[in-house]
Amino acid sequence: MPISIFGKQEIDLNEEKQINQMKLLAIDMIDNAKSGHPGIVLSSGEILYQLYANHLRILPKNPTFFNRDRFVLSCGHASSLLYSCLFMAGYDITLDDLKKFRQIDSITPGHPELNVTPGVDMTTGPLGQGIATSVGMAIAEKYLHEKFNPVDFNIYCLVSDGDMMEGISYEAMSLAGHLKLDNLIVLYDSNNMSLDGKLGLSYSDNMELRCNASKWKYYCVEDITTLNSAIEQAKSINQPVLIEVKTILGRGSKLENTNTVHGKPLEKDDISQLKEKFGLRDVPFSISQDTIEQFRDKIYNRVKGIEEEFNTKVNNLKEKDKEILNKIINKDYKLNIDNFIYDMPNEEKESPRDTSYKIINYASDNNINILGGSADLFSSCKNYIENGGVFYKDDYTGKNIYFGIREHLMGAILNGISLCGLTSYGSTFLSFSDYMVEPIRLSAMMNLKTIYIFTHDSISVGEDGPTHEPIEQLSKLRITPNVDVFRPCDVNEVIGSYKTILEKENGPSVLCLSRNKLPILSTSKANDVIYGGYTLLDYPSNIRGILISSGEEVHLALDVAKKLQVKGINLRVVSMPNLKRFLNQDDEYIDNVLPVEIRKIVIEAGVKDLWNCLVYNTKNIISIDTFGASGKKEDVYEKYGFDIETLSEKIEKLLK
Amino acid sequence: MPISIFGKQEIDLNEEKQINQMKLLAIDMIDNAKSGHPGIVLSSGEILYQLYANHLRILPKNPTFFNRDRFVLSCGHASSLLYSCLFMAGYDITLDDLKKFRQIDSITPGHPELNVTPGVDMTTGPLGQGIATSVGMAIAEKYLHEKFNPVDFNIYCLVSDGDMMEGISYEAMSLAGHLKLDNLIVLYDSNNMSLDGKLGLSYSDNMELRCNASKWKYYCVEDITTLNSAIEQAKSINQPVLIEVKTILGRGSKLENTNTVHGKPLEKDDISQLKEKFGLRDVPFSISQDTIEQFRDKIYNRVKGIEEEFNTKVNNLKEKDKEILNKIINKDYKLNIDNFIYDMPNEEKESPRDTSYKIINYASDNNINILGGSADLFSSCKNYIENGGVFYKDDYTGKNIYFGIREHLMGAILNGISLCGLTSYGSTFLSFSDYMVEPIRLSAMMNLKTIYIFTHDSISVGEDGPTHEPIEQLSKLRITPNVDVFRPCDVNEVIGSYKTILEKENGPSVLCLSRNKLPILSTSKANDVIYGGYTLLDYPSNIRGILISSGEEVHLALDVAKKLQVKGINLRVVSMPNLKRFLNQDDEYIDNVLPVEIRKIVIEAGVKDLWNCLVYNTKNIISIDTFGASGKKEDVYEKYGFDIETLSEKIEKLLK
Repeated sequence: MPISIFGKQEIDLNEEKQINQMKLLAIDMIDNAKSGHPGIVLSSGEILYQLYANHLRILPKNPTFFNRDRFVLSCGHASSLLYSCLFMAGYDITLDDLKKFRQIDSITPGHPELNVTPGVDMTTGPLGQGIATSVGMAIAEKYLHEKFNPVDFNIYCLVSDGDMMEGISYEAMSLAGHLKLDNLIVLYDSNNMSLDGKLGLSYSDNMELRCNASKWKYYCVEDITTLNSAIEQAKSINQPVLIEVKTILGRGSKLENTNTVHGKPLEKDDISQLKEKFGLRDVPFSISQDTIEQFRDKIYNRVKGIEEEFNTKVNNLKEKDKEILNKIINKDYKLNIDNFIYDMPNEEKESPRDTSYKIINYASDNNINILGGSADLFSSCKNYIENGGVFYKDDYTGKNIYFGIREHLMGAILNGISLCGLTSYGSTFLSFSDYMVEPIRLSAMMNLKTIYIFTHDSISVGEDGPTHEPIEQLSKLRITPNVDVFRPCDVNEVIGSYKTILEKENGPSVLCLSRNKLPILSTSKANDVIYGGYTLLDYPSNIRGILISSGEEVHLALDVAKKLQVKGINLRVVSMPNLKRFLNQDDEYIDNVLPVEIRKIVIEAGVKDLWNCLVYNTKNIISIDTFGASGKKEDVYEKYGFDIETLSEKIEKLLK
Repeated sequence: MPISIFGKQEIDLNEEKQINQMKLLAIDMIDNAKSGHPGIVLSSGEILYQLYANHLRILPKNPTFFNRDRFVLSCGHASSLLYSCLFMAGYDITLDDLKKFRQIDSITPGHPELNVTPGVDMTTGPLGQGIATSVGMAIAEKYLHEKFNPVDFNIYCLVSDGDMMEGISYEAMSLAGHLKLDNLIVLYDSNNMSLDGKLGLSYSDNMELRCNASKWKYYCVEDITTLNSAIEQAKSINQPVLIEVKTILGRGSKLENTNTVHGKPLEKDDISQLKEKFGLRDVPFSISQDTIEQFRDKIYNRVKGIEEEFNTKVNNLKEKDKEILNKIINKDYKLNIDNFIYDMPNEEKESPRDTSYKIINYASDNNINILGGSADLFSSCKNYIENGGVFYKDDYTGKNIYFGIREHLMGAILNGISLCGLTSYGSTFLSFSDYMVEPIRLSAMMNLKTIYIFTHDSISVGEDGPTHEPIEQLSKLRITPNVDVFRPCDVNEVIGSYKTILEKENGPSVLCLSRNKLPILSTSKANDVIYGGYTLLDYPSNIRGILISSGEEVHLALDVAKKLQVKGINLRVVSMPNLKRFLNQDDEYIDNVLPVEIRKIVIEAGVKDLWNCLVYNTKNIISIDTFGASGKKEDVYEKYGFDIETLSEKIEKLLK
């Protein structure tokens, strides 16, 4: 006999069958993989069913249809349920794919991965990221809808208790409520259980008050019919909505409502009794084609025509708008700044953050498809778009997003914006990149076009002291796979960095910028930044050594080279704005810039470790391997031996 | 004419003078340093005055008095005000020290730093960390009070709007409310302004509802008298308390209530008019000795006798208790596990997390001064103390803290616990260390005795896939200054790692542990872990190469060596559980283990970059430099070339 969903209300028998089919397929997948999370399959099945059957405007046969509603599974460990649901919904996923759940190179991996499974809108798993990224998608939709009327979709997100405990979920709710993002509907599988036991061991927030505090509409439902009407209402409320769905973890299993059912496959006899209870044959992966067809028909009948409708509207746009929107739809992220004529300052110096300001303003003024903001550091990081206006609840056309002092959320929002076809950027101090490591990692994993503008990039921050002075951050970003890290030394290299970044097809980029005014060099080359490193200063003969440096310290290297040249010591200076790119050049290029036979010395105001790839003897790396200090920039430099005098002496000695 | 504080109520003229003195000294400090944050000086002066004059049980002449109330300046940018207040309160800070604000090597650095300025209870600056660390202190106090009755103090914390926007502050409030930490009183300088402009651009949480949602008592005050009684009441309420103090940023300055006044020194004429308004002479650093004496007397008369009282109570404790408490008071963090007899498993294999479980249980059972928990991963990371009980609102003697799925908060709490004289530890998956980078950094900066138990430490996680598989994390932790990273390969090395960690006097340590069962080696040496690396397998002659590895991959290296030995290729295998420690050994030791003339090959399932310090040619580093994949452990290994077959072939080829 079929059981009713949350134990409260009778539901349609056909619906019941579809839900049970969906759940049991997922249970079989976990059983087959000997790995997975059955608890949430049995608690959340109804929620996914309800969303896909009755609400999501999606096209299973065209999973990347631009105007589709987005669905983000913030609790990525419910992956089996999602795949089972997508299979039943008619996405290009076979029963065989389900059988390969959590197997190598399958399209049904352990947690949802973007670009691997049709119908998966983002990579999830690390808790809290999904709901926060959804806020980014909601921001992008609001922005795009204002610019291009045909764009009109909602973002649905399923969260678990774990998501709601992560700080980033509060940041997300705080900003989404503040911005009145009414295109965002969060379903909360509230089952009072976490991996280690009852949720009450560690968490007892009052969710209704929490929603009220952050200006969200709150519903609490306990059965599938009420859930349906709550979602229906949510669509027309002018606030973001959270629907708390009271569920029971592992419902129906012998281990129902225990933490044991969270992350371990069910025993065989448990599966058998479950199948009997659910009225299905006790054969792995047995499906009822009728049941599946009913589910598919339900979706098909509800969504048919949405693609044609959207395309017609797009076709009716002005040519220029159509062109831009199609660029966004086709995820063509390449931005061109070739026509940008840089207005060189009258002074001989400029701060990299000031150069950055001019370029990002140019890029934004000339491209609708770039959008970003700052974590309350517009004034310090200088990335405010002067003609852009403020992105705010009364005006979603604004190009400046005030993320607030929420670096972690900013990272996730950039991912969400980029997932909707826009290039995104955000700014804070380099030292505070430590707050947003996880979203940067996800951006790299999803290969998104995100740009991080991190200023105040070394001990030259000075007075603010060690907490504000990055030491290890630059290297940490450099070693993160697929993150493209630039640390330009002057105006020309900032231009070259931006050019490389903006023209890229995809992938995250980091700009590490000094806050200080730096000389504009006559030999620095914007066009060489793409190679990662190049010769900045050279002599025709008798090169005694090569100084390699990046960013602000390049100027120290040049000063040292000039000082020692007077003493008859000729030093080549190599600027290395992007270490990884340099290492990816061919041997000839590398050997040309850094001939094997010449001694190399690195000067960088950060940890030494990465430089051993160019300089084997650690003695030849002049670095800072402890935390910084508070003081005038010059005094801090001197304390760490980064003044010209000390550097020159040290280098002269090394060359002896 | 003196102005009243928040503009609402008359206050005592003497108090007014003391407050104005405190503020203007701070303003002079900023002016002198040409750097600092005047806005919060003028908004928060009354709050600091009220706390120090009338509430904090502190001893300016004995700033580390164990039973003192703690004060945490979460908004570290108010440092000038704090130093001025501490100077006036009679701490060992001179007027000259104040004049050296933000100068190199002064005791008055840009943001408060532990062990630099007397009276500073923790290093702050990165927003949100202070309030979260305060929760750790509150937990430690509750725990210690239950164990040792004389210990009895409150934790006061000043937060700004920025702190309240950070996700970690919500995590902190959620857990503190849940645990009913009534020894925690947070003062919130609510001035509606942030660096980039009006707070309303990015934030509009309802603080009262937010407090109610997380079970905090909320007060809102607008004048100094009400503030006084709110603090008084807060002490006797059995919940944590947040007092929102409505203030005006930069009050009195010409730039009052603008964002400009946040982070830039005031103009000279602004300072002059401020001094006139405040009734003080327009001479930099002019002080009224009378005013200062009044402030000092007020504190002295209030707190006199608290030291004797505490010492008497401690002396009346049982000898054993007194001994332990004195260890805690004296910050003697050394823990000894020499008597620990390891109960070797019957099998020939054991998972490092299981070994860790036994040791942490032994250490906890035998030492009151170690306390920790898990971010909802006790069951996976295996650090539950069986005889420990749960730390909960009804029983603060419990030794297992359920941090919830709040890794960031966990990091900060560990810092707070350690700041109160206890060794602290916490657990999660290595990949999720990405959520807690900032508190680990602060732990390293403050040199605290914290232990991070990070399990599931490589792609051998398998099924959970790339989001759960650390690739760059191990290296990122290794390059963070003052972080001691261990990656043991078997039972013996786990024991050696713990021995080294527990016996240390201070400083954070990271344990990266495999979740898989690993063979117990006959040649691995617990006592050699302290050197970072040592020879595990060797042959008397004809060594063709050295395989260097860590953790789980050591077993791959051994298998490869055995396989190639059959072919007549003798390979030494070096286990490297702690790379940095190895690099710190003397040349003789290093050359003995890794003779210069022999080819070295590294095998590690993570990014290659750090290993160039031992192996110049990158070809000889067998690493993983992209994200992982979901699949059976063996299949994932094979995909990345970490199966014995591929490794052997590759290494044989490299040696040719």
